[in-house]
Amino acid sequence: MEQVDEESSQSVSKKATKKEAAKQEKLRRRQEAALASAASSLAIEEEEDPLAANYGNVPLYELQSKEESNLSDWTRVEELTEGLKDKEVLIRGRAQTTRAVGKNMAFVVVRQKGFTVQCVVTAQPELVSRQMVKFVAGLSRESIVDVQGLVSVPSVPIKGTTQQVEVQVRKLHCISKALPTLPINIEDAARSEKEIEEALQAGEQLVRVNQDTRLNYRVLDMRTPANQGIFHIQHEVGSIFRKFLESEGFQEIHTPKLIAGASEGGSAVFKLDYKGQAACLAQSPQLHKQMAICGDKERVFVVGPVFRAEDSYTHRHLCEFVGLDAEMEIKKHYSEVMDIIDRLFVTMFDHLNDKCKKELDAVRRQYPFEPLKYLRKTLRLRFEEGVQMLKDAGVEIDPYGDLNTESERKLGQLVLEKYGTEFYILHRYPLAVRPFYTMPCYDDAKYSNSFDVFIRGEEIISGAQRVHVPEFLEERAKACGIDVNTLTTYIDSFRYGAPPHGGFGVGLERVVMLFCGLNNIRKTSLFPRDPLRLAP
Amino acid sequence: MEQVDEESSQSVSKKATKKEAAKQEKLRRRQEAALASAASSLAIEEEEDPLAANYGNVPLYELQSKEESNLSDWTRVEELTEGLKDKEVLIRGRAQTTRAVGKNMAFVVVRQKGFTVQCVVTAQPELVSRQMVKFVAGLSRESIVDVQGLVSVPSVPIKGTTQQVEVQVRKLHCISKALPTLPINIEDAARSEKEIEEALQAGEQLVRVNQDTRLNYRVLDMRTPANQGIFHIQHEVGSIFRKFLESEGFQEIHTPKLIAGASEGGSAVFKLDYKGQAACLAQSPQLHKQMAICGDKERVFVVGPVFRAEDSYTHRHLCEFVGLDAEMEIKKHYSEVMDIIDRLFVTMFDHLNDKCKKELDAVRRQYPFEPLKYLRKTLRLRFEEGVQMLKDAGVEIDPYGDLNTESERKLGQLVLEKYGTEFYILHRYPLAVRPFYTMPCYDDAKYSNSFDVFIRGEEIISGAQRVHVPEFLEERAKACGIDVNTLTTYIDSFRYGAPPHGGFGVGLERVVMLFCGLNNIRKTSLFPRDPLRLAP
Repeated sequence: MEQVDEESSQSVSKKATKKEAAKQEKLRRRQEAALASAASSLAIEEEEDPLAANYGNVPLYELQSKEESNLSDWTRVEELTEGLKDKEVLIRGRAQTTRAVGKNMAFVVVRQKGFTVQCVVTAQPELVSRQMVKFVAGLSRESIVDVQGLVSVPSVPIKGTTQQVEVQVRKLHCISKALPTLPINIEDAARSEKEIEEALQAGEQLVRVNQDTRLNYRVLDMRTPANQGIFHIQHEVGSIFRKFLESEGFQEIHTPKLIAGASEGGSAVFKLDYKGQAACLAQSPQLHKQMAICGDKERVFVVGPVFRAEDSYTHRHLCEFVGLDAEMEIKKHYSEVMDIIDRLFVTMFDHLNDKCKKELDAVRRQYPFEPLKYLRKTLRLRFEEGVQMLKDAGVEIDPYGDLNTESERKLGQLVLEKYGTEFYILHRYPLAVRPFYTMPCYDDAKYSNSFDVFIRGEEIISGAQRVHVPEFLEERAKACGIDVNTLTTYIDSFRYGAPPHGGFGVGLERVVMLFCGLNNIRKTSLFPRDPLRLAP
Repeated sequence: MEQVDEESSQSVSKKATKKEAAKQEKLRRRQEAALASAASSLAIEEEEDPLAANYGNVPLYELQSKEESNLSDWTRVEELTEGLKDKEVLIRGRAQTTRAVGKNMAFVVVRQKGFTVQCVVTAQPELVSRQMVKFVAGLSRESIVDVQGLVSVPSVPIKGTTQQVEVQVRKLHCISKALPTLPINIEDAARSEKEIEEALQAGEQLVRVNQDTRLNYRVLDMRTPANQGIFHIQHEVGSIFRKFLESEGFQEIHTPKLIAGASEGGSAVFKLDYKGQAACLAQSPQLHKQMAICGDKERVFVVGPVFRAEDSYTHRHLCEFVGLDAEMEIKKHYSEVMDIIDRLFVTMFDHLNDKCKKELDAVRRQYPFEPLKYLRKTLRLRFEEGVQMLKDAGVEIDPYGDLNTESERKLGQLVLEKYGTEFYILHRYPLAVRPFYTMPCYDDAKYSNSFDVFIRGEEIISGAQRVHVPEFLEERAKACGIDVNTLTTYIDSFRYGAPPHGGFGVGLERVVMLFCGLNNIRKTSLFPRDPLRLAP
């Protein structure tokens, strides 16, 4: 264990999970009973109601592809604006909240992918029965409903919904019922720390959903506006990564995750039996992406899972994460690689700020953060300069050692103060702290043609020029204490003519976490894997 | 073992590998001796040559990022056209072939990413020495060279190069030396069966490089025009898949490959120890992509490795391949999913035919194939209709069983004859042959809302509407003999309101293989993994 996360530790999490499970089981039994009784009482009402066809639970067989669909019949919640006034619309979404006002009126807020609209059910002859009002008022939260009705524009602004129109409901059918009591309420899961604290000061104790509970019920947790935003941003980061590199002549390759022997040596690997052969899960696509360069692919990228069996239980380590990797021929200098990174990330940050405003706002409402400060031309600092800045600030530091998390953060602060950026490249790292395949500097073999890239004082990228000369690569592997025999195929790849080359690897979850100023990488992984978590 | 591949069987492959290794070791020793003696003789000549700076082997320190690069100094081989006549250019590429004509002249064909240009070295006072001619003529094939020279336009067409200009060489430096004798020659690896057979009829025996040898030396094999084409096309298929789905409102998610318990049951899984917990590698992103739908992602796709520990050694099975998966809410009918597939693949095929002409031609030259026949609107055939067509053709078949490889091929033929397409959808499969989470048909529970998609008589896609009702899902799992306790988290995901949904999974390597009419999936996987192969 490298560092214990603030929000949870092993014992707490295990206990919580057991208790949670018992609680859930009880809940479920109670809910099943409730559902059964609700259904039977409903059945009676339906029989008595001549308008019963306008509402109710849709039976399964109706949802088994009974009819061909006409998608143009449907309107999206986000499309519901004043322009549709008096038009009849059909929407599908979740019953986020329901509220009855007497026996003749009910409100249901319907949510579709983060957009919400207020739907009004008013009892009126020939159209809407009181039974229908009761049915709507009794819908369990998060149930999926089809609503048909007329768009109306109220004279006063509507609070608590994204859309400023209402739907006057004519028909409402429940497609899928949620349990009456959910393990976590979306409302609770969407609450910011600030709201909880302010309520506490006013004497009210609101529910705080902890990170482990969120992950145990990720399908619910995912529905909060912040999480919809986070995973939209994650999608965009991957999309921009690929599109930018494609526009620079890179092509995607797929490297095997099942390999014989450890992929880079060093940290722990997951081992498995492969048809009687000893195998492990690749810790990175490093060796294979370099082999693709030797195979004349010239510029490649790889997007895929990487596996680390490390015992790190920190805010920024996962046992499985998404690696965004690139490798390219270089003509002269590893700055060619840094040039790509520079333009790639400035393009990406610009795009996120420009095209994901709504998503960033949604994240910010729950987890406040300042927009990332970055320069049009990314700052490049030599490792030696970084060490000097730290020394000048009174930090004791080994000039040929690696930076620890603390000094990385400190340097991030110093760089921000001096250069006004939270995104920068630190290059020419000491050779001793880099992998064996890293090319040493031409003028000082204690340093290497390598770099790390930082956002808000935390590392998101490592990269370097690689050794492309097989004899020298062998020498370097031996010097690093690696058994050269385990690397034969890899090293042999460079014996058939190998261009000078370099590349880098990015952690997708870290980019999203740090761009959004989040405090835990588990917030940016849909189904995270850490030493304690293998589910859901 | 399901079916033995024509090109290799276990015993042959193992023997070949051992023999190959011994041969290689011998070769290497001889080559090292040769290189050493060549280097020493060269050293003498260099001392005597006043023009020695114009050629030679570039020492390592010059390639360790000594100078910043100016990329605009460089011209790409594919850019070398008549317009550059008399201009000085600098190119980097591989010495594909060299040829001396007496002592005063040498030719070297330089290749860069499939494009080739002839470079001419002519001894002339003050410019090019005879030693330089000798150096160039002695370059080992596949070495990387930097060539500086003037573009000239010969009066007769140049055979055997893609570019119709020559470079009159002024300087030529070797950046990376290839071994003098390569384990496979690119020329041999690039040869078509037809060429080999025609030569044989003319009494000449040419080298045929078998599939296993190719894969053992993939970094060399990758350099053939056909393979450059194949992996370019693979890149495009992935790129179109994502871009098309993005344009339809799908977002990318990343699902964990490390999971507790088997992902779908059924076929064999790779098992491993996860920090003391029993774990396995996901056989598909099925369960997690459905959970993302329950988490309001609405439309998602996943691109990533899937793992199958099956003992199938066929032309179309791999133990690790790239899955292109999608999942989406459906309003009414699984035809909504088939609509997406229809437009996605027609878009993809159009794009490949339009934008990858050169690559397809390169593949076709080595592995002849006919362009895929497909309709503007993809044919949809009911399983029952397919069965009837087979019966009418005299094939005995169980109407509630699955199709085997043979009947799939046969049906492909019949469909081609009747409808003129090699790409079609077969839907409403018998329920019994589909996974437990498949939604049965509303009108006949012996059939299901599912489909397979075929190219040239082979399956590339499976898809279906899924069961979104938790109680029914439990029932179906039990009916399929699956322990429901292993699926708790998955089934619980549907208890909090779940929209009707469906999706599909595509095998990337299969799409490329079948679009290009190739006979082995190992040809479309960069580093394939099958029961016998875990390297390179």
